[in-house]
Formats: sequence, structure tokens, C-alpha cells
Amino acid sequence: MFPIQFIVRLAASGLLALSLSVTAVTAQTDPLPSWNDGAAKQAILDFVTRTTAEGSADFVPPEDRIAAFDQDGTLWVEHPIYTEFRFVIDRAPDLVKAHPELADKPAFAAILSKDEKRIAALDARELFEALVVTLSGMTPDALGEEINAWLKTARDPRWRRPYIDLTYLPMQEVLTFLRANGYKTFIATGGSVGVVAPYSREFYGIPPEQVSGSAQDLKFEIVDGKPVLIREAKLSLDNIEAGKIENFRMVYGRTPYAQFGNSSSDDQQALQYVKNSPGLRLSVAILHDDAAREYAYGPAQGLPDSPVGTFSQEMYDLGQKEGWIIVSMKNDWKRIFAFED
Amino acid sequence: MFPIQFIVRLAASGLLALSLSVTAVTAQTDPLPSWNDGAAKQAILDFVTRTTAEGSADFVPPEDRIAAFDQDGTLWVEHPIYTEFRFVIDRAPDLVKAHPELADKPAFAAILSKDEKRIAALDARELFEALVVTLSGMTPDALGEEINAWLKTARDPRWRRPYIDLTYLPMQEVLTFLRANGYKTFIATGGSVGVVAPYSREFYGIPPEQVSGSAQDLKFEIVDGKPVLIREAKLSLDNIEAGKIENFRMVYGRTPYAQFGNSSSDDQQALQYVKNSPGLRLSVAILHDDAAREYAYGPAQGLPDSPVGTFSQEMYDLGQKEGWIIVSMKNDWKRIFAFED
Repeated sequence: MFPIQFIVRLAASGLLALSLSVTAVTAQTDPLPSWNDGAAKQAILDFVTRTTAEGSADFVPPEDRIAAFDQDGTLWVEHPIYTEFRFVIDRAPDLVKAHPELADKPAFAAILSKDEKRIAALDARELFEALVVTLSGMTPDALGEEINAWLKTARDPRWRRPYIDLTYLPMQEVLTFLRANGYKTFIATGGSVGVVAPYSREFYGIPPEQVSGSAQDLKFEIVDGKPVLIREAKLSLDNIEAGKIENFRMVYGRTPYAQFGNSSSDDQQALQYVKNSPGLRLSVAILHDDAAREYAYGPAQGLPDSPVGTFSQEMYDLGQKEGWIIVSMKNDWKRIFAFED
Repeated sequence: MFPIQFIVRLAASGLLALSLSVTAVTAQTDPLPSWNDGAAKQAILDFVTRTTAEGSADFVPPEDRIAAFDQDGTLWVEHPIYTEFRFVIDRAPDLVKAHPELADKPAFAAILSKDEKRIAALDARELFEALVVTLSGMTPDALGEEINAWLKTARDPRWRRPYIDLTYLPMQEVLTFLRANGYKTFIATGGSVGVVAPYSREFYGIPPEQVSGSAQDLKFEIVDGKPVLIREAKLSLDNIEAGKIENFRMVYGRTPYAQFGNSSSDDQQALQYVKNSPGLRLSVAILHDDAAREYAYGPAQGLPDSPVGTFSQEMYDLGQKEGWIIVSMKNDWKRIFAFED
């Protein structure tokens, strides 16, 4: 149901160096093999066909093909606690050692307990403030090296695997499929751009400059005669709630043609704005309804509530009314992780 | 003095549609024909050779090749008043008609007078506040359409030409040369991203998402049941002084390998930060010392002071000490504008 696509690139840089790569996607190859046949898969295939086929009424010029993806709960596991918070939990003890007064703050007390239920019970903004303090005082490069080093050794407690394995295979296929059809892919996360950008290329094939996230101020200083930038404990861009689409549009000056998310707390307005923009737009919301293979939480469709990534019944009803694609992980995804048999 | 480069791209999108473009730059072709031979031109050629030749000690992988350009005074004329302010001057009367109380504010009184000397004499921040008010209350798309319509009819008062003609030919050549060698080019302006991004592709071949600028908040609202984003009279990202490099690094998570600017008021710290970053980096500062063909202002090298784009002697000395390339428009540029004979 999608056009034959040939993308051949021959690019050489440097003296007489040549490299050749050929990608050919034919009608015989399923670009989304981890998706079960059904309305969700078909809607994604149709969207790409209609926006990329020359002569289509919904054709989008290649330079305007922009797609944005939430990370937590959309590209990888977020339940019961965001991976970024696990990093903060591991990092906080050193900070509190240097600043013992922080131990009295409820958020730090919970973080130091390493009790994930207690941490998850914290007010989201309270937790985020502790995160902002923990992720300040260093250069952005130092934080990038730290998160990448952590990701090499840290293991998810349920699957006992590195976090890169917890990315969703069906969504990796969507990223690849969109890029093969000329879409420039972006991350639009409620999490910290300073944490996500350093691994976005390795994990998702998305370069750092195409990661939009909540952002802490950087401060220019001259230290020992050399200029440095230091992360401040001050949130300059807040991607929670409508902030995600407000900041994406402000920073990039573009409205995505396709928006993927899962949470009422930071995706709802972005999905709504994109779907209502002129032209053919695709808004996709991932419903976590697979307690066996991943997690089930909502409270859309009567699923239990969750401290993270809440998919409210209100958002569900809005999505149905506006024609978003609501993906059931249980029914629409044949495989969730690459490591599954 | 630079390697033979072949860049061949064959890309097709859409059913059976094919497009072919071939760019071949050989040692016989001068990529910077509007530059006079000299240290500045040679430094740019050498930088590209050393960062792109395979096996070079200074080789930069293609995915890391980032170059950032200030706009006003670096890519086009800024003197005696920024083009963005001319747009605001033309736009302000309608705003004051709707909000007569604004006429009492000194900045608006000066703007309404259309006396450029009086406007230029305003405190920069006072002027910028008036700009922020003038450029608020509409959607970002509406502002984009407005600036592009204005640019079609507005004429520069000295040359009587559309502003696109006031872009510097030598800098257009640098943009093209860097891109042909795998560099991703960005604008890093002290001006408004909401004004510059809508024309950046047409004027400079730079897509909107690669424009970093001072940015006003957008506010998500539901109007008549539809979601909209409205520009607020509040500056969320301020690219003045060190803000330019702080915000670039915060938003894009990248440090450019090459930085081009001209002003002590918003390029100095960026040029300093880039030049002092690890690896081979290029910082280029444009000195406006050509009173005949463009303008001469400084006060570096004893040139007269200017209300915009001040190139201080302090910045000049810092650049000399740190090994920036200081471009004399008078001596280094054979042609300044494409319309010159």
C-alpha cells in the first residue's frame, strides 16, 4: 500500500574517498514487521503514502517533512519510573555528600531511600526540582559523558538489560520508515534535553540538535582564562503540558506533520495541535495496555492509574473524536522489544 | 589547496519519480571567488581541508560538522539600523492605532517618528522591548507570512533594493562551500527567531529548525474549539551577549566547529567559546571597514562607533590573541554584493 521507493546516496568526503550505500524498499518488503496488521499500522502506512507520493493531494515537499516523537512511554519503557530519574537516583548521593543540607528536602530524602514507590509518589514538580538541582553545576559535555557512561553499565531492574534494549522495536521501525521517506525525525520529550541529546543518535538515529526537551540554563563563565558553560539549577524551557508544543514551535519554527506520544501530562496538547494543523497530519498515541509483555496503565479504558505517563480517559476521548491513531501495545504490536523471540 | 571533492546525490521520493543532481568541486574551481587571496580566505580553505580530509589529525566526522553564522552584519547589512527594526517600524503604527496608550512610550514615540537617527539612539533593550510588544499577539505562522510579504516589497533606503540583495556574496559562498563539505549550517542571531526562520531557507539555504535566535514565548490556547499558539510579549530566550552561545548549546546540544560573527554585543562570547573548544575550531569576525562599498564602524581600529554591531577594540585584541580570523571587508572581499559589477 505504499509506493516503491528508491533512495540511493553516493557521498564522498575527503581526498578520493568514496562511500556507497543503497537502500531499496519495495512493495514486497514490510517496513513495519513488528506491527500486527490492523487500523493503526495501516494508518501509518497510508499517511506516508499520501504525504510522499508525487501528485497526491496531500503531498508534503521533502523539506517540510517533520515528525516528532515523545521518548518516555513512546520510544522506550517509562514505567514505573522514568529512566532519567534512575540516573538521578544513582547520581544524587554524591551531590548530597557535597551538599548535606539537601538531605532534609523531601524529594532528596525519597531519592536517597532508593524506594521507587516512595519516589514515584512524589509530586512530579517536586521530583523535577530535585532533578534540576542534581543535574547542575557541571558543563553540558561532562553531563553527556556521565549519562553515556551510566547507560553502558546500568541495568533495568525488571528485564536486567541495558536501557537501549528497552526501546520499542515497532517505534524504531517507524523512525526508520519515516526517514527512508524523507522525514526528518525529532524527539520532543518532557525530560531533559541535556540528558537525552547525548545518546539520541546511538539510541534512535536522531542527532542532538533534533532533540527538544526541558532545558536548564547554561551560564557562560571565564575559568582560569578559558570560557566554559555551566549548567544552572534553573529551568529555562519547561516541556510539561502545553510547553512541549509551545517550545518545539518556538525553537524550530516548524509544526510536525506526524506527532507520537502517550501521556496526558506532556503529549496531549502537542497531539491536538498537530492533528488540527492544515494539511494531512498524523497524531499517534500509544496506549500501555499490555501487562504481560510490558505494563498496563491508563487510566484510559479503565486501566490502573500510574505516577508517570498518565493516559487519561479525557485524552482518549479527545483522540477518538479528532481522529488520532490510538495504538494498543497489546493488539497492535507483534513484538515490543528486539530481544524477544 | 583543498581536496578534490565529489558529492553525488541521487535521491528519489514518490512513485517512480527520480531526480539527479551532481556537484563536483575540483582543485581548479575556486569555491570563494568573491574573496581576495590573503590570510582570511586561506584560513577558511585550510580549516575545511584539515577538518574534512580523511586521515587528517583534525578530521571531524561528517555528523559533527556544525557551523554557526550570526545574521546582522555577518550575512547581510545591519547598519545603520537592523532590518528587523525596519519591519517593526513599518508594523508599529497599526499596533499603536489599536493600543493608543503605547504612543506615550519613548521607544514607540521614536519608532512612530520613523526618524532612524532617533531610533538608533534608543537604548538597545528599550528598543527590543518595543519590538517584543510589536511582534506579539499573532500566531507564529501569521508573523511568518507577514515578514515574507514585507520582504517582497520593502526596499533598503541606500541601495533601493530588496533586502535579499543586501546579503553578502562572500558569505553566501562560505555557506555553500561548508555545506558542500558536509557542514550543517546554522544561524545564531541576536534577532528574533520568529522573524528570521520564515525566510532563512530562501535567503541562506538554511532550514527554519537551524535558526537560533532570541525567542518570545508561545502560548497554547483553545479558540473556537481549535488549538492555536499565540506569540506572547515575553522574551523566553535572549541571545544578547553570552546568551547567543548559551542558548545555542542548550537548544542544540552541539558546539559549532566554525563560528562567524561581527559584534561585541552578541558574538564575542560565542567566538571565544568556539575557538577555545577542543579540536580545530574556526572563529571568524567580520570588520566593517569599507565606508565606500558598505559602511565603516568599529570602534576597533579607530573606526567610528555605531548604534548596532559594535566591534570593540577589546574584542579585536581578544581575537588577535586567540587566533580568530578577522576579515577586513575592504581588503578581503573582492565583491560585497551580487549586484555589483
